[in-house]
Amino acid sequence: MMTDKTASLQSRTTLQQCLHARLQVKPPDEQSEAEWVEIDRGMVIYICFFKGATEDIIPKMVTSLLNIKLCETDSGKYVSVLDLPGSVLIIPQATLGGKVKGKVMQYHGNIGKEEGQQLYAQFVSQCEKEIAASSKCCEAGVMAVLGLQFASGSFLCAKEEEI
Amino acid sequence: MMTDKTASLQSRTTLQQCLHARLQVKPPDEQSEAEWVEIDRGMVIYICFFKGATEDIIPKMVTSLLNIKLCETDSGKYVSVLDLPGSVLIIPQATLGGKVKGKVMQYHGNIGKEEGQQLYAQFVSQCEKEIAASSKCCEAGVMAVLGLQFASGSFLCAKEEEI
Repeated sequence: MMTDKTASLQSRTTLQQCLHARLQVKPPDEQSEAEWVEIDRGMVIYICFFKGATEDIIPKMVTSLLNIKLCETDSGKYVSVLDLPGSVLIIPQATLGGKVKGKVMQYHGNIGKEEGQQLYAQFVSQCEKEIAASSKCCEAGVMAVLGLQFASGSFLCAKEEEI
Repeated sequence: MMTDKTASLQSRTTLQQCLHARLQVKPPDEQSEAEWVEIDRGMVIYICFFKGATEDIIPKMVTSLLNIKLCETDSGKYVSVLDLPGSVLIIPQATLGGKVKGKVMQYHGNIGKEEGQQLYAQFVSQCEKEIAASSKCCEAGVMAVLGLQFASGSFLCAKEEEI
């Protein structure tokens, strides 16, 4: 008897500490200036969902990401973004799901646009809840910000080399 | 008979397109101002080597990273950083090798410091050669820049969620 133990990847995130981060969510046009979302000290979360991802993974992801001790305090200690306390900028970054095929990137494993947007929305909503429930964050007025579009020039992809 | 087909990860890279990028390589102190390295349009390569990585993988990595079509031109077409032509900022980012263990990050899989620095140096040197050999890049005066230290607040890690 065989059991299928193949793990199926549901999401990929990349985290980046920041002292300040801003994302252009609307480029300038003739009528108006560019629009930005920004946070001060905290963490930028780039996130991508793969085909087959369901909302079941969101709580575990949010808890894990907000509680990992990877934010450096002024004294050099590492604490979670909740304990910093810091803000969170969440950027849907579909390019994280890319695979290199020869010289081009392919995105066949990425989740569909609508489904992806629903998952992003739930992810942001649960981050907001968890941050609001943190007394430290609440007191410091930090927040979760969703950057719905991409910064001009923003393009992040992950690549691994195996033997 | 069994054959061990377990792939052993040698490196992880994260790529980010940029219109301009700068990295603080020396914080300010009483004697001097902060020092930065910077590039204009091009690509930031965050790179981390794992235990067991050897110089054999460098040529393949460099060729692959410099030739993947993921740089967006003004007309919206995707070309390689060599064809853009663009500069490259290479940042050793050991935190990319982290694994989440409970609430802390562990780096047991990372290569040793000295070995890592040798591989970084070779990686940068081969990037420089390949860029110098590209007539487009040469003409445009673009270059490869190594940021030997980390920007204040720079911290990048990758995380994946599986079922």
